[in-house]
Amino acid sequence: MLARLEDPDEVRPLLIHPDETAGGRMTSELFALRRRMTVQEAMRALRDLGPSEEVTYYLFVVDRDNVLRGVVSLRRLITSEPTTTLESIMDPDVIRVRASADQEEAARLMSRYSLPALPVVDDAGRLLGMITHDDLVDVIEEEASEDIYRLGGVLDEERTSGPVSASVRRRLPWLYVNLVTAFLAAWVISQFKATIERVAVLAAFQAIVAGQGGNAGTQALTVMVRSIALGDVELRDAWRALLKEVTVGLVNGIAVGIAVGAIASLLQGNPVLGVIIGLAMIGNMMAAGLAGALVPMILKRLHVDPALASGIIVTTVTDVTGFGLFLGLATLFIQWLV
Amino acid sequence: MLARLEDPDEVRPLLIHPDETAGGRMTSELFALRRRMTVQEAMRALRDLGPSEEVTYYLFVVDRDNVLRGVVSLRRLITSEPTTTLESIMDPDVIRVRASADQEEAARLMSRYSLPALPVVDDAGRLLGMITHDDLVDVIEEEASEDIYRLGGVLDEERTSGPVSASVRRRLPWLYVNLVTAFLAAWVISQFKATIERVAVLAAFQAIVAGQGGNAGTQALTVMVRSIALGDVELRDAWRALLKEVTVGLVNGIAVGIAVGAIASLLQGNPVLGVIIGLAMIGNMMAAGLAGALVPMILKRLHVDPALASGIIVTTVTDVTGFGLFLGLATLFIQWLV
Repeated sequence: MLARLEDPDEVRPLLIHPDETAGGRMTSELFALRRRMTVQEAMRALRDLGPSEEVTYYLFVVDRDNVLRGVVSLRRLITSEPTTTLESIMDPDVIRVRASADQEEAARLMSRYSLPALPVVDDAGRLLGMITHDDLVDVIEEEASEDIYRLGGVLDEERTSGPVSASVRRRLPWLYVNLVTAFLAAWVISQFKATIERVAVLAAFQAIVAGQGGNAGTQALTVMVRSIALGDVELRDAWRALLKEVTVGLVNGIAVGIAVGAIASLLQGNPVLGVIIGLAMIGNMMAAGLAGALVPMILKRLHVDPALASGIIVTTVTDVTGFGLFLGLATLFIQWLV
Repeated sequence: MLARLEDPDEVRPLLIHPDETAGGRMTSELFALRRRMTVQEAMRALRDLGPSEEVTYYLFVVDRDNVLRGVVSLRRLITSEPTTTLESIMDPDVIRVRASADQEEAARLMSRYSLPALPVVDDAGRLLGMITHDDLVDVIEEEASEDIYRLGGVLDEERTSGPVSASVRRRLPWLYVNLVTAFLAAWVISQFKATIERVAVLAAFQAIVAGQGGNAGTQALTVMVRSIALGDVELRDAWRALLKEVTVGLVNGIAVGIAVGAIASLLQGNPVLGVIIGLAMIGNMMAAGLAGALVPMILKRLHVDPALASGIIVTTVTDVTGFGLFLGLATLFIQWLV
């Protein structure tokens, strides 16, 4: 009469479902009712349960094959006639998730429909367990942590209290990948060796142009990555998002470019240097906006986590554009700089 | 007999509680019971409620002054004698939160005790409303978003779909703050103008040393900021965390330094340049670990959000250290470089 799904000591269902799926996340200790039961029988079943057994506000109703057929709230149970069958008072439209679904899908369903518990079923519709609001919190925190770590260039969740070797393993590969792009940026600079030899102070100002471009690109990609994660932006909004970020880049570029240009002119007593650095800054900020918006969307399209690789690509773009534009302009107008 | 706390149209309680407090987050439409009621009366009250009213698994029990006195589960109600009073079956130890408490405190309580709903009370203990598991999810997502945005140099939550002006307002101030540190780094480079004039290729390699230091520093601070946010690290663990991060910096520094040094030696046909860049890399990575661990802890101590300002301070440290160490060593050993 009472469908107890699993022995508490039975941990197999968790072992056969991969970690980040609904099945891997669910608890299989749950109290379910049969649809042919009356309200009275259901109440008796509730009374017979040990006081430590977990009961939730929504009770799942199954048939004799354990297929999920409906859901009934405790309140509905209380307020119904004792002789009514559960079948006639249950709500047959139960939002459910397959055990093989990604845990993020389960979390999205629970958030959207404000569910305190989400039933997990197998391919035949049989009830295997449920994901509770507790598990939902864990999933959300894990997903947020993953994005934060990856945006920061740490490959996997890592805590301060862990060993040195674990930290090295999670960070060193990323530093090696970055090395490739660092040498690319260095190669761009080395193309202008002759210019730098004549006006060595350019080596100081180039860092400002590239660095600020990197900051602006990081801002743009942060907003884009979070918007993608929270479902605020779809790939079909791509053109609007791109146009917006390039416009933000233009506005911020003019605002920062004028400031940097003015300071550089005063420091070096040379307005041409100021104009060059200001123009390079505007161009690099627009490149930053373009790359910051475009790269996460392309990665998403390619089914690569945008949080993982966007940063390195965007800062490569802003380094190469920043160094190239600034030193290129300086080379063109070198006679006003020496 | 039945304590309905608020008229649904009555929104005042939300207006008088600041946004990020428990009071500002709670719903004040909740169904509470009086402690002198019998089980039978409570059941009747449940039946008399409209079907659209929200009922939760745990029902709060108040006295005639609306002071929160206990909590009783629907299941306990079902399984008790009809003539028993709620006072005798309720659990008088109710985890509660004051309306003035930070929403993060409420979220922590709900997470720790796996509560589907948390009652919110005023200073006299009167029940004002409750925070549900739904609200908890919102709080957790907001707090994570805030950390992600601030780590990315965006001052406040921002979505791709928002207007350009909102983006500029949230990002430009940060770019101006960064400008100060960018000029500081540029000033360090300009101190070595004479060295760069003689060996212009240093201007290319300096970018690698500073950039990789910045990456390593960002990794260290990301782990530290997240560990602080999740309560994994306390200020008294400071020494251990510092020692660990400096060690990680040393290990990664040696690994990256050897690679960079070897490549630079080959590219320039000069092993001295390789040794200098390798040593500067090791030193800068250790500085990155030190700053990445120390800065968030100091900011936390000063009650400044570590996510907000750590990035700019840490990359300033790695820029200044990287440029200074590399160009300083190059100046010392200039006769082997020209």
